[in-house]
Amino acid sequence: MITHTKLGVAVKNIQRADAEIIDGLAKVGAATAHEAQGRIGNMQAHMRPVYTGKRIAGSAITVLAQPGDNWMLHVAIELCQPGDVLVIATTTPCSDGYFGDLLATSAIAKGVRGLIIEAGVRDTKDLQEMDFPVWSKDISIRGTVKNTLGSVNVPIMCAGQHIMPGDVVIADDDGICVVPREKAEATLEASIKREANEEDKRQQLEAGILGLDIYKMRPRLEEAGFVYVDTLEDLK
Amino acid sequence: MITHTKLGVAVKNIQRADAEIIDGLAKVGAATAHEAQGRIGNMQAHMRPVYTGKRIAGSAITVLAQPGDNWMLHVAIELCQPGDVLVIATTTPCSDGYFGDLLATSAIAKGVRGLIIEAGVRDTKDLQEMDFPVWSKDISIRGTVKNTLGSVNVPIMCAGQHIMPGDVVIADDDGICVVPREKAEATLEASIKREANEEDKRQQLEAGILGLDIYKMRPRLEEAGFVYVDTLEDLK
Amino acid sequence: MITHTKLGVAVKNIQRADAEIIDGLAKVGAATAHEAQGRIGNMQAHMRPVYTGKRIAGSAITVLAQPGDNWMLHVAIELCQPGDVLVIATTTPCSDGYFGDLLATSAIAKGVRGLIIEAGVRDTKDLQEMDFPVWSKDISIRGTVKNTLGSVNVPIMCAGQHIMPGDVVIADDDGICVVPREKAEATLEASIKREANEEDKRQQLEAGILGLDIYKMRPRLEEAGFVYVDTLEDLK
Amino acid sequence: MITHTKLGVAVKNIQRADAEIIDGLAKVGAATAHEAQGRIGNMQAHMRPVYTGKRIAGSAITVLAQPGDNWMLHVAIELCQPGDVLVIATTTPCSDGYFGDLLATSAIAKGVRGLIIEAGVRDTKDLQEMDFPVWSKDISIRGTVKNTLGSVNVPIMCAGQHIMPGDVVIADDDGICVVPREKAEATLEASIKREANEEDKRQQLEAGILGLDIYKMRPRLEEAGFVYVDTLEDLK
Amino acid sequence: MITHTKLGVAVKNIQRADAEIIDGLAKVGAATAHEAQGRIGNMQAHMRPVYTGKRIAGSAITVLAQPGDNWMLHVAIELCQPGDVLVIATTTPCSDGYFGDLLATSAIAKGVRGLIIEAGVRDTKDLQEMDFPVWSKDISIRGTVKNTLGSVNVPIMCAGQHIMPGDVVIADDDGICVVPREKAEATLEASIKREANEEDKRQQLEAGILGLDIYKMRPRLEEAGFVYVDTLEDLK
Amino acid sequence: MITHTKLGVAVKNIQRADAEIIDGLAKVGAATAHEAQGRIGNMQAHMRPVYTGKRIAGSAITVLAQPGDNWMLHVAIELCQPGDVLVIATTTPCSDGYFGDLLATSAIAKGVRGLIIEAGVRDTKDLQEMDFPVWSKDISIRGTVKNTLGSVNVPIMCAGQHIMPGDVVIADDDGICVVPREKAEATLEASIKREANEEDKRQQLEAGILGLDIYKMRPRLEEAGFVYVDTLEDLK
Repeated sequence: MITHTKLGVAVKNIQRADAEIIDGLAKVGAATAHEAQGRIGNMQAHMRPVYTGKRIAGSAITVLAQPGDNWMLHVAIELCQPGDVLVIATTTPCSDGYFGDLLATSAIAKGVRGLIIEAGVRDTKDLQEMDFPVWSKDISIRGTVKNTLGSVNVPIMCAGQHIMPGDVVIADDDGICVVPREKAEATLEASIKREANEEDKRQQLEAGILGLDIYKMRPRLEEAGFVYVDTLEDLK
Repeated sequence: MITHTKLGVAVKNIQRADAEIIDGLAKVGAATAHEAQGRIGNMQAHMRPVYTGKRIAGSAITVLAQPGDNWMLHVAIELCQPGDVLVIATTTPCSDGYFGDLLATSAIAKGVRGLIIEAGVRDTKDLQEMDFPVWSKDISIRGTVKNTLGSVNVPIMCAGQHIMPGDVVIADDDGICVVPREKAEATLEASIKREANEEDKRQQLEAGILGLDIYKMRPRLEEAGFVYVDTLEDLK
Repeated sequence: MITHTKLGVAVKNIQRADAEIIDGLAKVGAATAHEAQGRIGNMQAHMRPVYTGKRIAGSAITVLAQPGDNWMLHVAIELCQPGDVLVIATTTPCSDGYFGDLLATSAIAKGVRGLIIEAGVRDTKDLQEMDFPVWSKDISIRGTVKNTLGSVNVPIMCAGQHIMPGDVVIADDDGICVVPREKAEATLEASIKREANEEDKRQQLEAGILGLDIYKMRPRLEEAGFVYVDTLEDLK
Repeated sequence: MITHTKLGVAVKNIQRADAEIIDGLAKVGAATAHEAQGRIGNMQAHMRPVYTGKRIAGSAITVLAQPGDNWMLHVAIELCQPGDVLVIATTTPCSDGYFGDLLATSAIAKGVRGLIIEAGVRDTKDLQEMDFPVWSKDISIRGTVKNTLGSVNVPIMCAGQHIMPGDVVIADDDGICVVPREKAEATLEASIKREANEEDKRQQLEAGILGLDIYKMRPRLEEAGFVYVDTLEDLK
Repeated sequence: MITHTKLGVAVKNIQRADAEIIDGLAKVGAATAHEAQGRIGNMQAHMRPVYTGKRIAGSAITVLAQPGDNWMLHVAIELCQPGDVLVIATTTPCSDGYFGDLLATSAIAKGVRGLIIEAGVRDTKDLQEMDFPVWSKDISIRGTVKNTLGSVNVPIMCAGQHIMPGDVVIADDDGICVVPREKAEATLEASIKREANEEDKRQQLEAGILGLDIYKMRPRLEEAGFVYVDTLEDLK
Repeated sequence: MITHTKLGVAVKNIQRADAEIIDGLAKVGAATAHEAQGRIGNMQAHMRPVYTGKRIAGSAITVLAQPGDNWMLHVAIELCQPGDVLVIATTTPCSDGYFGDLLATSAIAKGVRGLIIEAGVRDTKDLQEMDFPVWSKDISIRGTVKNTLGSVNVPIMCAGQHIMPGDVVIADDDGICVVPREKAEATLEASIKREANEEDKRQQLEAGILGLDIYKMRPRLEEAGFVYVDTLEDLK
């Protein structure tokens, strides 16, 4: 299977994870899925929601776009199915506004759940009113042209993560997690286990029991040479 | 006409665009005006609204301030008229809080519509409560001194744009667009045409017609050598 | 007294400022306290509230954490008292999510008022629902490990400020100010004087009197060589 | 084949490209290889040589390291063969000095040709004296610990590129290009063709013939609506 | 005169400053010219020489290029005369390599003295060997396309400065200064005076006389309330 | 002892470490001293030498300067003794050129060994010719004024480190390390021990013995769950 990208091509048919599994991952959220799949898959922290309060998951329709050029987004929307999420990377860093209310109208008509783009968007007020969630690196009034070829549904690198078309992307106020399609089911199972485990800890912490005791950290601290002193004067 | 800046001077009388045109530009917003005047005039994307939901336009009262020094803002406010917008650049990048609730009180008393500053502001909660919209690069508690001369109503460079006093600035949640005074009327006309045109496209997109077809992109894609393949395996 | 930091140690007992003084400083806010203590103590502007609308002050429980490692936060929480604020620096810049809903639960159980961290946090929606205010450099889904020793209640450098355990930290929508414990009372007094003084100025500015006149700036401008001209043409 | 990464594992045997092809790619350099394989594969521009004047290519031994932790580099060196290049990514952005003269001594003993690391290095003067070329994001005196597991010879994302162990990396003063192992031969061939073609153009340009004419750009400019005017006054 | 930019146009004839004045400005250098014209005209500090040791001045041939697109550079070179310097801005921030050895060959054939670009360049080793000085924001192997129109010899904004075609640009190891054509002569005169004045001060400083005394700072410090204390203990 | 800073004051007499110890620390360099004093004291990696190849240590004369204002440097130079190093922080981030050939002439006349400044410098070519080493955040032609008070020989925060006047600063091509005066002797001793230890390791590594074996890492890796597999296929 190809793992590197290529320009000037669109892949029409991609495999997707099971819809129920995707919806389950939306429920657990990006941070839990990230831990559950072994502390990997997190996009970099410069990706922020355009407006807060949304938590989505979907199958990635990947787009590799040229700087200042959103031609490929039109190609991508045709290939979207209900439940998909557009994931857009650029061939070189760019802050332009690739996506606004018109493309959102088209994406909503196709059942797309949201947009993740390591570049800029605009019409942000409209996007919120249309209830179309977007995560981006920038917000910019500067629009784009349609002159240079990129690709759709090829492997891309977005915000530090490698994404194959059909991988599951989970996005919420905390950030974005990429789960490879083949690992989606196992990650959901591990996430649910993790959440159950956390609930128990939350109750203990609420009752005032310390993490030091719940996680049995005291002996490890001592073994590592950690020292308690009474006052700052004792540091001399 | 001078196009480069100068320190230690204030220009008392500037020409402004017609009030109706300015208000028309406020209605179309920064992104549309940017496209309508030929994809130029956008300030850089690091300029963000201190609070969202406002859309304004006004005549630029320009200020060139020294780092950490807001002396010139006091000079500028005297020269403001109702409908003006303060646009502040610094001689060197600075994140200090040049503007807070006291200066906002004074600006409101003069009928100023808002502030655009490539530096920092403070008292942000007060600014929102006073309904005085601000776009800035930073928010900072660090105030400024009044020791070193800058200028008022000279040409300035702010967030990547050259601004003459009296140019129209349009600012909203998406960013800021500068329209030269002499081009304000033509830009408004082009903006209104553009909006009408967009409305038609929006309805087609809502109905599920693709941008690929509305914009007749398929032949251009083919001509450029764009290729569709069935599956990822076909990329080998 | 030690002023430099050290790894692998926690100081159990620290001195705190008077509770009434701390609460007074919370009321005046970060910007006023910054001016009142002589224009020093401001953390850098990249520190932002995770959600807006909160204004707190408290005694700093300082944490020096290793990159991607939140072990020391568990040590720190045990040493917190009601009214304290956790202030966390890292030994090297890091954007990971050191703190989420579980640690917030534990901190709330101990009466901690909030968190200031020059790194990342996660579970931001939960933090807001729990009404636990946080100021951070980043928001990130990427969690941390518990493998490498840092320190608790040692002097730290956080966002450009030196902080001793027990110093007062004041945080609001505008940013964060650090007030040394020994200067807390004097800073509060100066802050209150400043506020009274500002109220008088606000009324004059509202009435349309200019800062140029209130602060008697006109002679100083003239003395510095500042020049008024009629129009841009006069700049030639 | 796995395309996503995993923590806590080392792959002992990887496939490498043909030595002659690798050496050929070193000769053409990073920029030419980038163009020749279709304008892809370039690492981001924040990766810079520690000292200039070197041009290398080699098979990537990939390392995924934790922040502030260089444990995995020791694992990686054992798996290196003469002609390899160490390529190191971190699980989260970090500027620490992961690599210095001791590790360079060990790498040289194994025949490693150089190091590419999206983090920091130190002992830069020694590295130059040892003639061991390094490309990095940072230079930092801050060393690392050996506490938390990463991986060796798994797929990694480094400076915006996805790299499989055994891919060819080409690095020189202009930057770094990643060529997938399976595409190395074709890329070399295309590079050599490109160079021949460039030589002819260079001679024409030296003779004063314009790119406008060599590349036949004039009709395309006219078709795109490009306009020549005599003087700035004609832009009014 | 137009002061704002426009896309899709080239101005064929521009006015240039006197050759002797330009060469005089090259001799005094960027920092001195900056002071001499009143502390304005400095490009931002992220512009760096690709190799050090060069000091040039020339008449600006301005280029406004689209992101990732160097089409306009070919248009610009035709309009260059011996003694000119290419000054290139982009419509949106971009780090791609717009310029390499082929374009340098063409520029040298036309007598161009150097290149200033707020974007990237490549073939840096060749540029140094060809003795063609370049100042840029980035170095990047990623080349560009020729698909979208920009402009040549229109007013541009580059690294925080507004530049008219024909303005004098001075560049050396310290940075870049823009001097408006009409102010070139006066700036050269002021620079020469300044240099003479500095020579006298240098001799005094070498002899151990303090700046405090040469510039008569002691009374001003006292007047401003500056205080000397004996030891750190006196700061309590 | 005061640990926080104050504006408008100079401390005339400071304690310095022993000259022999300082010279010893210069010999071991910044990275070794950083490790030897417990992995603390490193300034952030954005501080870079203006020219490479120098390694110095000296007693810090600390300066807190206002943005764009180098008045305090003149105050500081009077208080310098042979063997001192000027360490300059600003009250807010600033990239201006605070220091050039004239101040360097004055500093050399006083026996100052070098300059460390978290801001900009200029006349860099002269500085190298005068053999006066400088580490800075920026290089900038933009000079400064002398209008607003800062302080000299007060505690400062510079590039993430807290520095007391008289602390030892060590700077070389890798970066800068701050060693508190009281810890200078112990740090030198630990550094020398560390170097001896490293020499032995270097010889083993040169002989091809692996770090895995020298540092006995294999059992720790196994205990942590680290796994070796044969090929990438085994990762499925």
